[in-house]
Amino acid sequence: MSGRLTIIGLGPGDDRTLTPEARDALAEAEALYGYGPYLDRVPQREGQARHATGNRVEGDRAQDALRHAASGAQVAMVSGGDPGVFAMASAVCGEIEAGPEAWRALDLVVVPGISAMLAVAARAGAPLGHDFCAMSLSDNLKPWDLIEKRLDAAAGAGFVIALYNPVSKTRPWQLGQAFARLSRHLPAATPVVFGRAVGRADEAVTVTTLDKAAEAKADMATLVIVGSPETRIIPREGKAPLVYTPRVAAAGTA
Amino acid sequence: MSGRLTIIGLGPGDDRTLTPEARDALAEAEALYGYGPYLDRVPQREGQARHATGNRVEGDRAQDALRHAASGAQVAMVSGGDPGVFAMASAVCGEIEAGPEAWRALDLVVVPGISAMLAVAARAGAPLGHDFCAMSLSDNLKPWDLIEKRLDAAAGAGFVIALYNPVSKTRPWQLGQAFARLSRHLPAATPVVFGRAVGRADEAVTVTTLDKAAEAKADMATLVIVGSPETRIIPREGKAPLVYTPRVAAAGTA
Repeated sequence: MSGRLTIIGLGPGDDRTLTPEARDALAEAEALYGYGPYLDRVPQREGQARHATGNRVEGDRAQDALRHAASGAQVAMVSGGDPGVFAMASAVCGEIEAGPEAWRALDLVVVPGISAMLAVAARAGAPLGHDFCAMSLSDNLKPWDLIEKRLDAAAGAGFVIALYNPVSKTRPWQLGQAFARLSRHLPAATPVVFGRAVGRADEAVTVTTLDKAAEAKADMATLVIVGSPETRIIPREGKAPLVYTPRVAAAGTA
Repeated sequence: MSGRLTIIGLGPGDDRTLTPEARDALAEAEALYGYGPYLDRVPQREGQARHATGNRVEGDRAQDALRHAASGAQVAMVSGGDPGVFAMASAVCGEIEAGPEAWRALDLVVVPGISAMLAVAARAGAPLGHDFCAMSLSDNLKPWDLIEKRLDAAAGAGFVIALYNPVSKTRPWQLGQAFARLSRHLPAATPVVFGRAVGRADEAVTVTTLDKAAEAKADMATLVIVGSPETRIIPREGKAPLVYTPRVAAAGTA
Protein backbone atom coordinates (compact mmCIF):
# COMPACT_ATOMS: atom_id res chain seq x y z
CA MET A 1 0.00 0.00 0.00
CA SER A 2 1.43 3.38 -0.92
CA GLY A 3 1.87 5.98 1.77
CA ARG A 4 -0.46 8.88 2.28
CA LEU A 5 -0.29 12.09 4.25
CA THR A 6 -3.60 13.82 4.94
CA ILE A 7 -3.48 17.33 6.41
CA ILE A 8 -6.72 17.88 8.27
CA GLY A 9 -8.40 21.13 9.29
CA LEU A 10 -10.15 20.73 12.64
CA GLY A 11 -12.00 24.04 12.36
CA PRO A 12 -12.05 26.60 15.15
CA GLY A 13 -13.76 24.75 17.92
CA ASP A 14 -15.63 21.66 18.84
CA ASP A 15 -17.02 18.78 16.78
CA ARG A 16 -19.88 20.91 15.53
CA THR A 17 -17.52 22.67 13.12
CA LEU A 18 -15.63 19.52 12.06
CA THR A 19 -16.69 18.41 8.57
CA PRO A 20 -17.61 14.76 7.91
CA GLU A 21 -14.66 14.64 5.50
CA ALA A 22 -12.29 15.64 8.31
CA ARG A 23 -13.94 13.27 10.79
CA ASP A 24 -13.52 10.32 8.39
CA ALA A 25 -9.92 11.25 7.60
CA LEU A 26 -9.12 11.29 11.33
CA ALA A 27 -10.69 7.85 11.74
CA GLU A 28 -8.73 6.31 8.84
CA ALA A 29 -5.27 7.43 9.93
CA GLU A 30 -2.78 4.99 11.47
CA ALA A 31 -0.88 7.85 13.10
CA LEU A 32 -1.64 11.46 13.96
CA TYR A 33 0.89 14.31 14.06
CA GLY A 34 0.29 17.82 15.27
CA TYR A 35 0.74 20.63 17.74
CA GLY A 36 -0.23 19.28 21.16
CA PRO A 37 -3.32 21.42 21.87
CA TYR A 38 -4.81 20.55 18.45
CA LEU A 39 -4.17 16.82 18.94
CA ASP A 40 -5.87 17.10 22.34
CA ARG A 41 -9.10 17.99 20.52
CA VAL A 42 -9.13 14.62 18.71
CA PRO A 43 -10.61 11.67 20.64
CA GLN A 44 -8.19 8.82 21.38
CA ARG A 45 -8.61 5.78 19.14
CA GLU A 46 -7.16 2.35 19.87
CA GLY A 47 -4.18 1.43 17.71
CA GLN A 48 -3.73 4.99 16.41
CA ALA A 49 -0.35 6.45 17.33
CA ARG A 50 -0.10 10.13 18.35
CA HIS A 51 2.92 12.35 17.92
CA ALA A 52 2.44 15.72 19.62
CA THR A 53 4.98 18.50 19.15
CA GLY A 54 5.50 22.11 20.20
CA ASN A 55 4.38 25.11 18.18
CA ARG A 56 7.75 26.25 16.85
CA VAL A 57 8.84 23.07 15.08
CA GLU A 58 6.60 22.98 12.01
CA GLY A 59 9.42 21.90 9.71
CA ASP A 60 10.53 19.02 11.92
CA ARG A 61 6.94 17.92 12.44
CA ALA A 62 6.30 17.95 8.69
CA GLN A 63 9.47 15.92 8.02
CA ASP A 64 8.56 13.33 10.65
CA ALA A 65 5.09 12.88 9.16
CA LEU A 66 6.43 12.68 5.59
CA ARG A 67 9.05 10.06 6.55
CA HIS A 68 6.37 8.04 8.29
CA ALA A 69 4.03 8.24 5.28
CA ALA A 70 6.89 7.33 2.93
CA SER A 71 7.28 4.07 4.84
CA GLY A 72 3.86 3.13 3.48
CA ALA A 73 1.68 4.32 6.35
CA GLN A 74 -1.58 6.30 6.34
CA VAL A 75 -0.56 9.37 8.30
CA ALA A 76 -2.56 12.45 9.26
CA MET A 77 -1.42 15.89 10.36
CA VAL A 78 -3.95 17.94 12.28
CA SER A 79 -4.22 21.71 12.17
CA GLY A 80 -6.60 24.13 13.91
CA GLY A 81 -8.94 26.06 11.61
CA ASP A 82 -7.98 25.53 7.99
CA PRO A 83 -4.62 23.85 7.33
CA GLY A 84 -3.98 26.07 4.29
CA VAL A 85 -4.22 29.42 6.11
CA PHE A 86 -1.05 30.24 8.08
CA ALA A 87 -0.80 26.59 9.06
CA MET A 88 0.69 23.19 8.30
CA ALA A 89 -0.17 22.64 4.61
CA SER A 90 2.41 25.19 3.48
CA ALA A 91 5.04 23.77 5.84
CA VAL A 92 4.48 20.27 4.47
CA CYS A 93 4.70 21.46 0.86
CA GLY A 94 7.94 23.25 1.66
CA GLU A 95 9.46 20.05 3.05
CA ILE A 96 8.25 18.05 0.04
CA GLU A 97 9.94 20.49 -2.32
CA ALA A 98 13.21 20.37 -0.37
CA GLY A 99 13.07 16.65 0.45
CA PRO A 100 13.75 13.34 -1.30
CA GLU A 101 11.98 12.43 -4.55
CA ALA A 102 9.95 9.77 -2.71
CA TRP A 103 8.03 12.46 -0.88
CA ARG A 104 6.63 13.80 -4.18
CA ALA A 105 5.29 10.32 -4.93
CA LEU A 106 3.18 10.26 -1.77
CA ASP A 107 -0.55 10.81 -1.87
CA LEU A 108 -0.98 14.22 -0.30
CA VAL A 109 -4.53 15.24 0.65
CA VAL A 110 -5.51 18.52 2.26
CA VAL A 111 -8.90 18.54 4.02
CA PRO A 112 -10.12 22.12 4.46
CA GLY A 113 -11.60 23.43 7.70
CA ILE A 114 -13.48 26.49 8.91
CA SER A 115 -10.73 29.05 9.38
CA ALA A 116 -10.71 31.45 12.33
CA MET A 117 -11.60 34.48 10.24
CA LEU A 118 -14.77 32.81 8.95
CA ALA A 119 -15.79 31.73 12.46
CA VAL A 120 -15.18 35.17 13.98
CA ALA A 121 -16.89 36.94 11.08
CA ALA A 122 -19.96 34.70 11.47
CA ARG A 123 -20.25 35.61 15.16
CA ALA A 124 -20.01 39.34 14.42
CA GLY A 125 -22.35 39.50 11.40
CA ALA A 126 -20.65 39.84 8.02
CA PRO A 127 -17.49 41.98 8.31
CA LEU A 128 -15.88 39.98 5.45
CA GLY A 129 -18.85 40.60 3.15
CA HIS A 130 -16.74 42.61 0.70
CA ASP A 131 -13.11 42.51 -0.52
CA PHE A 132 -10.73 41.56 2.30
CA CYS A 133 -7.20 40.48 3.16
CA ALA A 134 -5.83 37.97 5.63
CA MET A 135 -2.40 38.70 7.11
CA SER A 136 -0.26 37.16 9.77
CA LEU A 137 1.05 39.81 12.13
CA SER A 138 3.97 37.64 13.20
CA ASP A 139 7.36 39.06 12.32
CA ASN A 140 9.07 35.76 13.09
CA LEU A 141 8.79 34.72 9.44
CA LYS A 142 8.90 38.08 7.66
CA PRO A 143 10.31 41.52 8.41
CA TRP A 144 8.15 44.12 10.17
CA ASP A 145 8.72 46.57 7.31
CA LEU A 146 6.95 44.21 4.94
CA ILE A 147 4.02 43.86 7.34
CA GLU A 148 3.64 47.65 7.48
CA LYS A 149 3.85 47.89 3.71
CA ARG A 150 1.03 45.36 3.42
CA LEU A 151 -1.09 47.12 6.07
CA ASP A 152 -0.67 50.36 4.11
CA ALA A 153 -1.60 48.72 0.81
CA ALA A 154 -4.62 46.88 2.18
CA ALA A 155 -6.10 49.76 4.17
CA GLY A 156 -5.28 52.29 1.46
CA ALA A 157 -7.17 50.28 -1.15
CA GLY A 158 -10.27 49.70 0.98
CA PHE A 159 -9.82 46.04 1.96
CA VAL A 160 -11.17 44.75 5.26
CA ILE A 161 -8.21 43.14 7.10
CA ALA A 162 -8.20 39.92 9.12
CA LEU A 163 -5.14 39.73 11.39
CA TYR A 164 -3.88 36.26 12.35
CA ASN A 165 -1.29 35.80 15.13
CA PRO A 166 -1.84 39.35 16.46
CA VAL A 167 0.04 38.86 19.73
CA SER A 168 2.28 36.37 21.51
CA LYS A 169 4.45 36.44 24.62
CA THR A 170 7.48 37.35 22.52
CA ARG A 171 5.55 39.79 20.29
CA PRO A 172 3.80 42.21 22.67
CA TRP A 173 3.90 45.48 20.66
CA GLN A 174 3.08 44.46 17.09
CA LEU A 175 -0.71 44.71 17.31
CA GLY A 176 -0.67 48.20 18.84
CA GLN A 177 1.75 49.36 16.19
CA ALA A 178 -0.44 47.85 13.48
CA PHE A 179 -3.46 49.79 14.78
CA ALA A 180 -1.39 52.99 14.80
CA ARG A 181 -0.28 52.31 11.24
CA LEU A 182 -3.82 51.59 10.06
CA SER A 183 -5.01 54.83 11.70
CA ARG A 184 -3.04 56.73 9.06
CA HIS A 185 -5.50 55.40 6.47
CA LEU A 186 -8.73 54.66 8.30
CA PRO A 187 -11.24 56.77 10.27
CA ALA A 188 -11.22 56.56 14.08
CA ALA A 189 -14.71 55.04 13.98
CA THR A 190 -13.67 52.08 11.79
CA PRO A 191 -15.18 48.93 13.37
CA VAL A 192 -12.75 46.40 14.85
CA VAL A 193 -13.75 42.90 15.95
CA PHE A 194 -11.76 40.82 18.44
CA GLY A 195 -12.71 37.15 18.35
CA ARG A 196 -11.11 34.89 20.93
CA ALA A 197 -11.43 31.08 20.99
CA VAL A 198 -14.61 31.20 18.90
CA GLY A 199 -16.48 27.90 19.02
CA ARG A 200 -14.84 26.89 22.30
CA ALA A 201 -16.01 27.16 25.91
CA ASP A 202 -14.07 30.34 26.62
CA GLU A 203 -15.25 32.17 23.50
CA ALA A 204 -15.29 35.98 23.65
CA VAL A 205 -16.18 38.39 20.87
CA THR A 206 -15.69 42.13 21.33
CA VAL A 207 -16.69 44.91 18.95
CA THR A 208 -14.89 48.25 19.21
CA THR A 209 -13.53 50.99 16.99
CA LEU A 210 -10.04 51.65 15.69
CA ASP A 211 -9.35 54.57 18.03
CA LYS A 212 -10.09 52.34 21.05
CA ALA A 213 -8.77 49.06 19.66
CA ALA A 214 -5.40 49.24 21.42
CA GLU A 215 -7.21 49.01 24.77
CA ALA A 216 -8.89 45.69 23.94
CA LYS A 217 -7.23 42.48 25.05
CA ALA A 218 -5.78 40.03 22.54
CA ASP A 219 -3.70 36.89 22.88
CA MET A 220 -2.51 33.97 20.75
CA ALA A 221 -6.06 32.60 20.48
CA THR A 222 -7.45 35.88 19.14
CA LEU A 223 -8.23 36.83 15.57
CA VAL A 224 -8.74 40.54 14.85
CA ILE A 225 -10.81 41.95 11.98
CA VAL A 226 -10.31 45.62 11.09
CA GLY A 227 -13.06 47.02 8.91
CA SER A 228 -12.79 49.22 5.84
CA PRO A 229 -14.25 52.74 5.72
CA GLU A 230 -17.44 51.06 4.43
CA THR A 231 -17.83 48.65 7.35
CA ARG A 232 -20.81 49.42 9.59
CA ILE A 233 -21.97 48.66 13.12
CA ILE A 234 -25.70 48.07 13.73
CA PRO A 235 -26.55 48.61 17.41
CA ARG A 236 -29.24 46.29 18.78
CA GLU A 237 -31.07 46.70 22.07
CA GLY A 238 -30.24 43.88 24.45
CA LYS A 239 -28.16 42.09 21.84
CA ALA A 240 -24.60 42.25 20.57
CA PRO A 241 -24.20 44.72 17.70
CA LEU A 242 -23.89 43.44 14.15
CA VAL A 243 -20.79 44.35 12.14
CA TYR A 244 -20.99 44.08 8.36
CA THR A 245 -19.40 45.32 5.19
CA PRO A 246 -21.88 46.11 2.41
CA ARG A 247 -21.54 44.26 -0.89
CA VAL A 248 -21.86 47.51 -2.78
CA ALA A 249 -18.90 49.90 -2.95
CA ALA A 250 -18.88 53.31 -4.57
CA ALA A 251 -16.06 54.86 -6.56
CA GLY A 252 -14.76 57.02 -3.72
CA THR A 253 -14.31 54.23 -1.18
CA ALA A 254 -10.60 53.66 -1.38
CA MET B 1 -41.51 31.98 20.50
CA SER B 2 -39.34 34.74 19.11
CA GLY B 3 -38.32 34.62 15.50
CA ARG B 4 -34.93 33.54 14.30
CA LEU B 5 -33.05 33.80 11.02
CA THR B 6 -30.11 31.44 10.56
CA ILE B 7 -27.84 32.01 7.56
CA ILE B 8 -26.22 28.70 6.73
CA GLY B 9 -23.05 28.01 4.76
CA LEU B 10 -23.42 24.80 2.76
CA GLY B 11 -19.74 24.63 1.86
CA PRO B 12 -18.49 24.09 -1.68
CA GLY B 13 -19.88 20.70 -2.48
CA ASP B 14 -21.56 17.66 -1.12
CA ASP B 15 -22.48 16.60 2.41
CA ARG B 16 -18.88 15.71 3.20
CA THR B 17 -18.05 19.41 3.57
CA LEU B 18 -21.24 20.33 5.46
CA THR B 19 -20.52 20.88 9.17
CA PRO B 20 -22.71 19.21 11.81
CA GLU B 21 -23.69 22.71 12.96
CA ALA B 22 -25.01 23.51 9.48
CA ARG B 23 -26.72 20.12 9.15
CA ASP B 24 -28.56 20.64 12.47
CA ALA B 25 -29.54 24.20 11.58
CA LEU B 26 -31.05 22.96 8.29
CA ALA B 27 -33.04 20.33 10.17
CA GLU B 28 -34.44 22.80 12.72
CA ALA B 29 -35.75 25.37 10.24
CA GLU B 30 -39.46 25.70 9.49
CA ALA B 31 -38.72 27.38 6.17
CA LEU B 32 -35.71 27.61 3.86
CA TYR B 33 -34.86 30.53 1.61
CA GLY B 34 -32.10 30.69 -0.98
CA TYR B 35 -30.88 30.78 -4.53
CA GLY B 36 -32.44 27.81 -6.33
CA PRO B 37 -29.29 25.76 -7.09
CA TYR B 38 -28.17 26.00 -3.44
CA LEU B 39 -31.59 24.96 -2.13
CA ASP B 40 -31.47 21.99 -4.52
CA ARG B 41 -28.49 20.67 -2.55
CA VAL B 42 -30.59 20.38 0.63
CA PRO B 43 -32.70 17.21 1.01
CA GLN B 44 -36.47 17.76 1.14
CA ARG B 45 -37.97 17.49 4.60
CA GLU B 46 -41.67 17.07 5.32
CA GLY B 47 -43.36 20.19 6.64
CA GLN B 48 -40.41 22.45 5.78
CA ALA B 49 -41.37 25.17 3.29
CA ARG B 50 -38.89 26.13 0.55
CA HIS B 51 -38.64 29.51 -1.15
CA ALA B 52 -36.24 29.45 -4.09
CA THR B 53 -35.27 32.67 -5.84
CA GLY B 54 -33.01 33.79 -8.68
CA ASN B 55 -29.44 34.98 -8.24
CA ARG B 56 -29.99 38.72 -8.73
CA VAL B 57 -32.54 39.36 -6.00
CA GLU B 58 -30.48 39.12 -2.79
CA GLY B 59 -32.19 42.14 -1.23
CA ASP B 60 -35.72 40.89 -1.90
CA ARG B 61 -34.80 37.40 -0.68
CA ALA B 62 -33.31 38.81 2.52
CA GLN B 63 -36.42 40.94 3.16
CA ASP B 64 -38.75 37.99 2.61
CA ALA B 65 -36.80 35.85 5.06
CA LEU B 66 -36.62 38.64 7.66
CA ARG B 67 -40.38 39.30 7.43
CA HIS B 68 -41.05 35.61 7.84
CA ALA B 69 -38.75 35.35 10.87
CA ALA B 70 -40.31 38.48 12.39
CA SER B 71 -43.66 36.68 12.37
CA GLY B 72 -42.15 34.33 14.97
CA ALA B 73 -40.89 31.58 12.67
CA GLN B 74 -37.57 29.69 12.65
CA VAL B 75 -36.26 30.59 9.21
CA ALA B 76 -33.04 29.61 7.47
CA MET B 77 -31.28 31.15 4.49
CA VAL B 78 -28.84 28.89 2.64
CA SER B 79 -25.70 30.05 0.88
CA GLY B 80 -23.02 28.16 -1.03
CA GLY B 81 -19.56 28.13 0.54
CA ASP B 82 -19.42 30.53 3.48
CA PRO B 83 -22.38 32.93 3.86
CA GLY B 84 -20.06 35.74 5.01
CA VAL B 85 -17.83 35.80 1.92
CA PHE B 86 -19.47 37.61 -1.03
CA ALA B 87 -22.78 36.02 -0.05
CA MET B 88 -26.04 36.41 1.84
CA ALA B 89 -24.92 37.41 5.36
CA SER B 90 -23.96 40.91 4.25
CA ALA B 91 -27.20 41.30 2.26
CA VAL B 92 -29.24 40.32 5.31
CA CYS B 93 -27.35 42.73 7.58
CA GLY B 94 -27.93 45.51 5.06
CA GLU B 95 -31.68 44.89 5.11
CA ILE B 96 -31.70 44.75 8.91
CA GLU B 97 -30.01 48.14 9.09
CA ALA B 98 -32.45 49.68 6.61
CA GLY B 99 -35.54 47.86 7.86
CA PRO B 100 -37.99 48.12 10.76
CA GLU B 101 -36.80 48.05 14.37
CA ALA B 102 -38.35 44.59 14.84
CA TRP B 103 -35.73 43.09 12.54
CA ARG B 104 -32.96 44.13 14.95
CA ALA B 105 -34.75 42.23 17.72
CA LEU B 106 -34.59 38.94 15.81
CA ASP B 107 -32.12 36.24 16.72
CA LEU B 108 -29.66 36.30 13.84
CA VAL B 109 -27.24 33.38 13.61
CA VAL B 110 -24.57 32.94 10.94
CA VAL B 111 -23.27 29.38 10.50
CA PRO B 112 -19.92 29.44 8.69
CA GLY B 113 -19.04 27.09 5.85
CA ILE B 114 -15.98 26.05 3.86
CA SER B 115 -15.58 28.89 1.38
CA ALA B 116 -14.57 28.25 -2.25
CA MET B 117 -11.07 29.67 -1.82
CA LEU B 118 -10.31 27.23 1.02
CA ALA B 119 -11.65 24.28 -0.99
CA VAL B 120 -9.71 25.20 -4.12
CA ALA B 121 -6.54 25.93 -2.16
CA ALA B 122 -6.78 22.53 -0.46
CA ARG B 123 -6.97 20.75 -3.80
CA ALA B 124 -3.95 22.61 -5.16
CA GLY B 125 -1.67 22.35 -2.10
CA ALA B 126 -1.33 25.51 -0.05
CA PRO B 127 -1.42 28.61 -2.28
CA LEU B 128 -3.02 30.63 0.56
CA GLY B 129 -0.25 29.67 3.00
CA HIS B 130 0.93 33.27 3.35
CA ASP B 131 -0.75 36.71 3.31
CA PHE B 132 -3.60 36.83 0.80
CA CYS B 133 -6.62 38.82 -0.40
CA ALA B 134 -10.07 37.77 -1.54
CA MET B 135 -11.77 39.98 -4.11
CA SER B 136 -14.94 39.78 -6.13
CA LEU B 137 -14.24 40.56 -9.77
CA SER B 138 -17.85 41.57 -10.40
CA ASP B 139 -18.29 45.18 -11.41
CA ASN B 140 -22.04 44.98 -10.87
CA LEU B 141 -21.64 46.26 -7.31
CA LYS B 142 -18.52 48.42 -7.59
CA PRO B 143 -16.79 50.34 -10.36
CA TRP B 144 -14.09 48.65 -12.44
CA ASP B 145 -11.61 51.41 -11.55
CA LEU B 146 -11.83 50.39 -7.90
CA ILE B 147 -11.24 46.74 -8.80
CA GLU B 148 -8.09 47.70 -10.72
CA LYS B 149 -6.89 49.85 -7.84
CA ARG B 150 -7.27 46.88 -5.52
CA LEU B 151 -5.54 44.49 -7.91
CA ASP B 152 -2.63 46.95 -8.09
CA ALA B 153 -2.45 47.30 -4.31
CA ALA B 154 -2.67 43.58 -3.60
CA ALA B 155 -0.19 42.43 -6.23
CA GLY B 156 2.17 45.32 -5.54
CA ALA B 157 2.36 44.44 -1.85
CA GLY B 158 2.94 40.71 -2.38
CA PHE B 159 -0.47 39.30 -1.46
CA VAL B 160 -1.75 36.11 -3.08
CA ILE B 161 -5.14 36.96 -4.64
CA ALA B 162 -8.29 34.81 -4.66
CA LEU B 163 -10.76 36.02 -7.29
CA TYR B 164 -14.46 35.32 -6.71
CA ASN B 165 -17.04 35.80 -9.49
CA PRO B 166 -14.33 35.92 -12.19
CA VAL B 167 -16.70 35.58 -15.16
CA SER B 168 -20.40 35.58 -16.00
CA LYS B 169 -22.41 35.74 -19.21
CA THR B 170 -22.73 39.51 -18.87
CA ARG B 171 -19.10 39.99 -17.72
CA PRO B 172 -16.95 38.24 -20.34
CA TRP B 173 -13.84 40.48 -20.40
CA GLN B 174 -13.13 41.27 -16.76
CA LEU B 175 -10.96 38.26 -15.93
CA GLY B 176 -8.68 38.75 -18.94
CA GLN B 177 -8.28 42.40 -18.09
CA ALA B 178 -7.50 41.50 -14.48
CA PHE B 179 -4.72 39.14 -15.63
CA ALA B 180 -3.32 41.88 -17.87
CA ARG B 181 -3.41 44.32 -14.97
CA LEU B 182 -1.72 41.87 -12.61
CA SER B 183 1.00 41.24 -15.20
CA ARG B 184 2.23 44.79 -14.60
CA HIS B 185 3.26 43.70 -11.11
CA LEU B 186 3.89 39.96 -11.27
CA PRO B 187 6.32 37.73 -13.19
CA ALA B 188 5.02 35.75 -16.17
CA ALA B 189 5.72 32.52 -14.28
CA THR B 190 3.47 33.40 -11.33
CA PRO B 191 1.33 30.32 -10.59
CA VAL B 192 -2.41 30.59 -11.22
CA VAL B 193 -4.97 28.01 -10.05
CA PHE B 194 -8.41 27.60 -11.61
CA GLY B 195 -10.77 25.62 -9.39
CA ARG B 196 -14.18 24.80 -10.82
CA ALA B 197 -17.04 23.18 -8.85
CA VAL B 198 -14.61 21.78 -6.27
CA GLY B 199 -16.24 19.08 -4.16
CA ARG B 200 -18.89 18.37 -6.79
CA ALA B 201 -19.12 15.70 -9.51
CA ASP B 202 -17.85 17.99 -12.27
CA GLU B 203 -14.86 19.29 -10.30
CA ALA B 204 -11.89 20.51 -12.34
CA VAL B 205 -8.67 22.04 -11.04
CA THR B 206 -6.10 23.49 -13.46
CA VAL B 207 -2.67 24.89 -12.63
CA THR B 208 -1.09 27.33 -15.06
CA THR B 209 1.01 30.50 -15.04
CA LEU B 210 0.03 34.14 -15.36
CA ASP B 211 1.27 34.52 -18.94
CA LYS B 212 -0.99 31.63 -20.05
CA ALA B 213 -3.87 32.23 -17.65
CA ALA B 214 -6.07 34.06 -20.16
CA GLU B 215 -6.25 30.85 -22.23
CA ALA B 216 -7.73 28.80 -19.38
CA LYS B 217 -11.49 28.43 -19.14
CA ALA B 218 -13.46 29.97 -16.30
CA ASP B 219 -17.17 30.35 -15.61
CA MET B 220 -19.48 31.36 -12.76
CA ALA B 221 -18.57 28.22 -10.80
CA THR B 222 -14.84 28.93 -10.96
CA LEU B 223 -12.61 30.44 -8.31
CA VAL B 224 -9.19 31.70 -9.46
CA ILE B 225 -6.11 32.02 -7.23
CA VAL B 226 -3.23 34.14 -8.51
CA GLY B 227 0.01 33.56 -6.62
CA SER B 228 2.49 36.11 -5.32
CA PRO B 229 6.10 36.25 -6.57
CA GLU B 230 6.87 33.80 -3.73
CA THR B 231 4.32 31.16 -4.76
CA ARG B 232 5.87 27.95 -6.08
CA ILE B 233 4.86 24.98 -8.23
CA ILE B 234 6.21 21.53 -7.32
CA PRO B 235 6.02 19.18 -10.32
CA ARG B 236 5.22 15.56 -9.47
CA GLU B 237 5.55 12.58 -11.80
CA GLY B 238 2.17 11.05 -12.57
CA LYS B 239 0.42 13.40 -10.14
CA ALA B 240 -1.00 16.90 -10.25
CA PRO B 241 1.59 19.53 -9.30
CA LEU B 242 1.45 21.12 -5.86
CA VAL B 243 1.11 24.90 -5.61
CA TYR B 244 2.11 26.56 -2.35
CA THR B 245 3.17 29.87 -0.87
CA PRO B 246 5.96 29.58 1.72
CA ARG B 247 5.28 30.86 5.21
CA VAL B 248 8.57 32.71 5.21
CA ALA B 249 8.91 35.97 3.27
CA ALA B 250 12.09 37.98 2.84
CA ALA B 251 12.38 41.76 2.85
CA GLY B 252 12.53 42.10 -0.93
CA THR B 253 9.37 40.20 -1.72
CA ALA B 254 6.96 43.00 -2.37
